[in-house]
Amino acid sequence: MNEIAVNIGEAKGVCAPKGFTAAGLHAGIRKNHGKKDLALIMAEAPCAAAALYTRNKVFGAPIAVTRKHLRNGTARAMICNSGNANTCNADGAEKADAICALVAEYGGVSPEDVIIASTGVIGQPLPLEPIAAAMPALVASLSGKGGLDAAEAIMTTDTVVKQAVETFTLGGAACAIGAMAKGSGMIAPNMATMLCFLTTDAAITATMLDKALRRVTDDTFNMLIIDGDTSTNDMVSIMASGLAGNAPIEAEGDDFEAFTAALRKVCVSLTRLMAKDGEGATKLMTCQVDGAPDAKVARAIARSVTLSPLCKTAIFGADANWGRILCAIGYTEGDFSIGQVKVVIQSKAGQVLVCEHGSGVAFSEEEAKKVLLDDEITLLIDMGQGTGSATAWGCDLTYDYVKINGDYRT
Amino acid sequence: MNEIAVNIGEAKGVCAPKGFTAAGLHAGIRKNHGKKDLALIMAEAPCAAAALYTRNKVFGAPIAVTRKHLRNGTARAMICNSGNANTCNADGAEKADAICALVAEYGGVSPEDVIIASTGVIGQPLPLEPIAAAMPALVASLSGKGGLDAAEAIMTTDTVVKQAVETFTLGGAACAIGAMAKGSGMIAPNMATMLCFLTTDAAITATMLDKALRRVTDDTFNMLIIDGDTSTNDMVSIMASGLAGNAPIEAEGDDFEAFTAALRKVCVSLTRLMAKDGEGATKLMTCQVDGAPDAKVARAIARSVTLSPLCKTAIFGADANWGRILCAIGYTEGDFSIGQVKVVIQSKAGQVLVCEHGSGVAFSEEEAKKVLLDDEITLLIDMGQGTGSATAWGCDLTYDYVKINGDYRT
Repeated sequence: MNEIAVNIGEAKGVCAPKGFTAAGLHAGIRKNHGKKDLALIMAEAPCAAAALYTRNKVFGAPIAVTRKHLRNGTARAMICNSGNANTCNADGAEKADAICALVAEYGGVSPEDVIIASTGVIGQPLPLEPIAAAMPALVASLSGKGGLDAAEAIMTTDTVVKQAVETFTLGGAACAIGAMAKGSGMIAPNMATMLCFLTTDAAITATMLDKALRRVTDDTFNMLIIDGDTSTNDMVSIMASGLAGNAPIEAEGDDFEAFTAALRKVCVSLTRLMAKDGEGATKLMTCQVDGAPDAKVARAIARSVTLSPLCKTAIFGADANWGRILCAIGYTEGDFSIGQVKVVIQSKAGQVLVCEHGSGVAFSEEEAKKVLLDDEITLLIDMGQGTGSATAWGCDLTYDYVKINGDYRT
Repeated sequence: MNEIAVNIGEAKGVCAPKGFTAAGLHAGIRKNHGKKDLALIMAEAPCAAAALYTRNKVFGAPIAVTRKHLRNGTARAMICNSGNANTCNADGAEKADAICALVAEYGGVSPEDVIIASTGVIGQPLPLEPIAAAMPALVASLSGKGGLDAAEAIMTTDTVVKQAVETFTLGGAACAIGAMAKGSGMIAPNMATMLCFLTTDAAITATMLDKALRRVTDDTFNMLIIDGDTSTNDMVSIMASGLAGNAPIEAEGDDFEAFTAALRKVCVSLTRLMAKDGEGATKLMTCQVDGAPDAKVARAIARSVTLSPLCKTAIFGADANWGRILCAIGYTEGDFSIGQVKVVIQSKAGQVLVCEHGSGVAFSEEEAKKVLLDDEITLLIDMGQGTGSATAWGCDLTYDYVKINGDYRT
């Protein structure tokens, strides 16, 4: 739980690792108010780079462009706008290319070394002019203290800035991973909700970077209710400057494991931040499944429960309606039995056993209410039939979710 | 659209076909108020019977008992309580058996000929006493005018009584299908939300009844957002008294097709009623997909869009945010392209083309608003790549959904 508190206060974010500067400002892409809407991260040296993208068949133009640029495993800069997803527009790729060219022109890098992302409304033409006009000032304001500005500039319906930093050593060399993310923890697999940009000064090849990123994303961002495989603009990218001076990680081994462990800490931290800041959310909901026949079934069950609107509204209402949890377990695909299911509801206020051997047990409604009134609820589900485990993160479903999404565009 | 208006006013419901009486009363299973909570349908002659059940691994005790009773394809009575799902209780089957025995004792039928169902909260012991106490009065009040009382007694969070009747002829013999249903069109595949009890006086074998029911359910109740495969207590049952005097339907052919067509009309009507009465719903949302590579893909896309909280909240907010529709199409599993997708939003107030060839087209926001302010919205999606079609029914997602489900039990 600590990491959230620690990292919210972390101002450096993506600039914590050696070799990165960042900036964020209001370019005017968004119609209203002066919210920052354009972010830039710049590396002083060529970086090994990797990224993972949405698996949605409808994907943003920036996704296509970034995929092309990262084919050679190197990058120097990352640009991201909020307020417009640049998706489902006939001229999307052309505009994404133009933005990369602007970064190249003012930043002194090759356009092919730019990672580009956009987040916001789908299907509205992206205005290039404000971006072109803002580029000189954006580049001029790059600094080692610009992490927070950049993190603010990628927010959409987020109410909390999301940054994380983890430091570690590799063979005596001090290393860091920094990150910023945006994501409003939408209630179901959905769109344009999650972006995460990671930086590190560890020396590591693009291949190993990709491997570490895949492994960690699978257990973190892909277990957040903003499923990695569903939004049109989701992207997780990482750039490694190599300036930490460690012996380059070129294969699996202790250093790779240490790097991956640090990466996991950063990503878990951001996953929790995004879940808790879910649109309209009042509570972080963590679902820990153990004792499943295998990890695949455990993952499916954890997602089912975390996705269920009825479980989510019950958590919002602090109602220990555990039958809804059993129901969501029961409709999960996969081969498992439900006769040994045990469910415990837990928070900082205590824990309550509500179901054992698949049937209800007597419990104090008063005690359950006390546990459920906390703002971080964990559902502990033991399937009692194997060693498969998984954790999913989500949030409650509230009036404000409906309010935020009932009229998003206007 | 007519059938809803026509059938809401239909008082006879399950008593419309020859040979059926019904009753419904307040037995006191529910804690509060005097709402009817116990329904009975009685056939004057042995009936061919069939039923389809939830595919949830967690299923109610009544499901297990009914499945056993219908193994021989015959039934005489149907009993259903609301207020308690009799699910996840260690003594559930025992109590379901006891209720069937009560129906047998007072109704003069064999307990093995009783179809039993329960709907309401999961995991709370079902009180037998009020049911035992009410049984004599319930049986005594059976009449050909009791359809409405029975339909009221199975309601939970439903705000509208759901009945339907269709008349047709088979070889000159006048036949009828009557039905009552409950279902609050929950926002996602979920629990204990749909029950439908059908009666008919057509003569038809249990095997053909089962075949017709499967075929029709697949395109109606299984395309309602209360997916047939997910709740713990869902059941659709049908009893055929054979009193219409038609030549018994024993195989496929014209009579079977005519029967199936009538059954489909009844089930579409009830599906629409349930969707429109979805918890907290203000609008019926119909998603019609054409031009998909095949029917399976069409069904998956129609469900994806109808299930998407973002599409549902946009419909609630009368916001023509078609990008969310594209996004939901895009994350649907299956092999299809999105380059030719065309989307039209339609209601009684008109229609607006919002997307063509997978990209946005200019449209009047004012016109779109007018169309979306209607209470029955149809999304017409043409995938432009085949002949696969499907329709799904759902509703918008509103503040009231959260309110209703935030504290359901208390």
